[in-house]
Amino acid sequence: MEERHSILGMSAFDAREAEALDPLVARRLRVLGAGSPLFYRTPIHMQRAEGVWMYDAEGTRYLDCYNNVPSVGHCHPHVVEAIARQAATLNTHTRYIDEGVLNYAEQLLATFPDALRNIAFTCTGSESSDLALRIARKATGGSGFVVTETAYHGNTSAVSEISPAYGADVPLGLHVRTVPPPDSRAHPGDVGAWFAANVEAAIADLQRHSVRFAALMVDTVFSSDGVFADPAGALAPAAASVRAAGGVVIADEVQPGFGRTGEAMWGFVRHGITPDLVVLGKPMGNGFPMGAVVARPEIFESFSRGSGYFNTFAGNPVAAAAGLAVLEVLQRDALMENARITGIHLRRGLAALAARHDVIAEVRGVGLYVGVELHGGAAAARAVVEGMRARQVLIGTAGPRGNVLKLRPPLCFKPTHADMVLTALGETLEHP
Amino acid sequence: MEERHSILGMSAFDAREAEALDPLVARRLRVLGAGSPLFYRTPIHMQRAEGVWMYDAEGTRYLDCYNNVPSVGHCHPHVVEAIARQAATLNTHTRYIDEGVLNYAEQLLATFPDALRNIAFTCTGSESSDLALRIARKATGGSGFVVTETAYHGNTSAVSEISPAYGADVPLGLHVRTVPPPDSRAHPGDVGAWFAANVEAAIADLQRHSVRFAALMVDTVFSSDGVFADPAGALAPAAASVRAAGGVVIADEVQPGFGRTGEAMWGFVRHGITPDLVVLGKPMGNGFPMGAVVARPEIFESFSRGSGYFNTFAGNPVAAAAGLAVLEVLQRDALMENARITGIHLRRGLAALAARHDVIAEVRGVGLYVGVELHGGAAAARAVVEGMRARQVLIGTAGPRGNVLKLRPPLCFKPTHADMVLTALGETLEHP
Repeated sequence: MEERHSILGMSAFDAREAEALDPLVARRLRVLGAGSPLFYRTPIHMQRAEGVWMYDAEGTRYLDCYNNVPSVGHCHPHVVEAIARQAATLNTHTRYIDEGVLNYAEQLLATFPDALRNIAFTCTGSESSDLALRIARKATGGSGFVVTETAYHGNTSAVSEISPAYGADVPLGLHVRTVPPPDSRAHPGDVGAWFAANVEAAIADLQRHSVRFAALMVDTVFSSDGVFADPAGALAPAAASVRAAGGVVIADEVQPGFGRTGEAMWGFVRHGITPDLVVLGKPMGNGFPMGAVVARPEIFESFSRGSGYFNTFAGNPVAAAAGLAVLEVLQRDALMENARITGIHLRRGLAALAARHDVIAEVRGVGLYVGVELHGGAAAARAVVEGMRARQVLIGTAGPRGNVLKLRPPLCFKPTHADMVLTALGETLEHP
Repeated sequence: MEERHSILGMSAFDAREAEALDPLVARRLRVLGAGSPLFYRTPIHMQRAEGVWMYDAEGTRYLDCYNNVPSVGHCHPHVVEAIARQAATLNTHTRYIDEGVLNYAEQLLATFPDALRNIAFTCTGSESSDLALRIARKATGGSGFVVTETAYHGNTSAVSEISPAYGADVPLGLHVRTVPPPDSRAHPGDVGAWFAANVEAAIADLQRHSVRFAALMVDTVFSSDGVFADPAGALAPAAASVRAAGGVVIADEVQPGFGRTGEAMWGFVRHGITPDLVVLGKPMGNGFPMGAVVARPEIFESFSRGSGYFNTFAGNPVAAAAGLAVLEVLQRDALMENARITGIHLRRGLAALAARHDVIAEVRGVGLYVGVELHGGAAAARAVVEGMRARQVLIGTAGPRGNVLKLRPPLCFKPTHADMVLTALGETLEHP
């Protein structure tokens, strides 16, 4: 059997490999234990960050081509100021009326198709995924979920069970079926029809086991599966199959959302579909812990009228202020368009590198979510990640075999920054 | 069958009862739906808060005797400043080394018994409860959980299934059994032995259904059950029974933790037990979204070596700064001692009111977590909550029948504030 890599273990520090433990790493292992992943063979002690740059304790500057949370740039002053001002004024919960959260909710919903008119706030993408499962079960009366083979949707008990990216140690639920991602190489003719056929077969298999189908849940750029953003439109046939089977479509926009694809605010738009539920997280507050589920009212209603939902910290005035500031910067600085332009520039340069380096199997992605698949498996990719770190550029890996370089910098990344990445990657491939 | 009240519906606004919808309430129903609970027949539009005071949009001042999140006081400048400073410097995740989160983790763990030496950070109490379930399952190989009859441990799929406080709309899991809380009136002789016998019977019933026992999970002041903090020590026999059955003890300290009982930093200490896992949330960051699971290393290890745990926003430098600032204020301002003194004063006054008002069935609680059980059911309690609001004092309700007034103000609540609550309550009971 082919080795599968756990999403937590990718590019991770391993104390057993370390020659001598840094005192901070030793302190960390003592309190956080061995299960809290740490990047790199020699972990980086970060101290400050600004825009696309991060600085370690020795003042070494790193170009951040990995972190998709500080999407409008690390420590963006407009967001920091919004957080500081609101935290000094009022930080409470949604059992009182707060106009800030309503302003934010309305502005955020205005970026969605008209059919998606309700929102439930959470604190993390994992909570959002978990809540989406609860809503989908209530709306459909089903409990069966279909996800992709290396999907990662979060860390709660229920969401872990639908996240095969964890690897063998976290069993999938009996009510879960997986399908391969829409990799055009698997079915060059019509990958959308092929993906839909696999989804239909998975639904049929659930039914064969007496599990009523609830939902198909997909990351609309298939990040953890190895980045399969194209072809746009590939999800449409599967969405139709899901509706025909009485299920709902859950779009996980934690990775592609908030303009990262450069082509649309939300990844599902590129696929010409309107999901029933949309899961938001990571870049929503540029690092302030917040997430949400956006829903069609007719899907949300049975859950609302039933148990309802309350989350102490979710939708608090500080989160709303942070979220609104992020939307303002995204718009004011035209970061979606910047993601589109820089993404094209970056992929063009990567294609040129691929022409010179046989180790590059494929360059994929859209906007500022880019995957570079390597021959040579996880070891090759890991060596490149370490080589890039030595050249002060931060990148990651993805995919079931850990052999896809993952590039997803803050959206304020400019073509000049992309050039630095390309130079460092060229050098790394020459002299690993 | 006696009516049971959902924890989300308590003291809640109901649009069907409203004569005319306030424009903000109408906007809110449109975007958040009907499932997002809102306090009071006429909800309060909050605008700012400071210390123990909250102010609505018209400038009306309310004495906050309800909110246990802003535990060191609303918008405490030391916490706000820590958040603002760190948010402007670095806000990243735990895959890099950050000294701030280590300093915080070590200082927080120093407040626990020596046996509890590991910590995993989360963003909410719900995430903490959910993670505790995952760790308990891994450590014991079991999946059966015992909770109290009206327990509330959070809002994820898995935690909802062990939270009977939601009421009938959220089914308990097949792997869940409930026991009555240690109410001394049920067994005046030795309520601890009685509680342990019930836990043992629940474990036996799980085994009878082929469900291997994993854990007993309890809020150590039994908040949502109606506040049963006394007698201290009542949990010890049940903890012994749990260990004898091969299970682990999970203490939910979201409500009693961080000094609220006035007698100890953690509610379990009053019971003379050391749990295997401890769940933290609400007051940890005075409103900054953060939580944690504190664990015995031997319980945490199998989970750590297996899947491990990563949570994007958890343990970030801003959360660590907020958490450290909260610990500093708690200590510097001796808020635990203040909770003890103000709590005694408050309960003494409530006992005096009880002597004059037959509607008060019992006054319970410890420190600044106080329950006042009323005759007359939820309607009586609700009328008092509304009457207190009219007198500008914020309180809540708890218990399976919604007839327990819940008083749990910020820990900087002084005896003079308690006097204001007593005056308002006396007036409300005279003229409902």
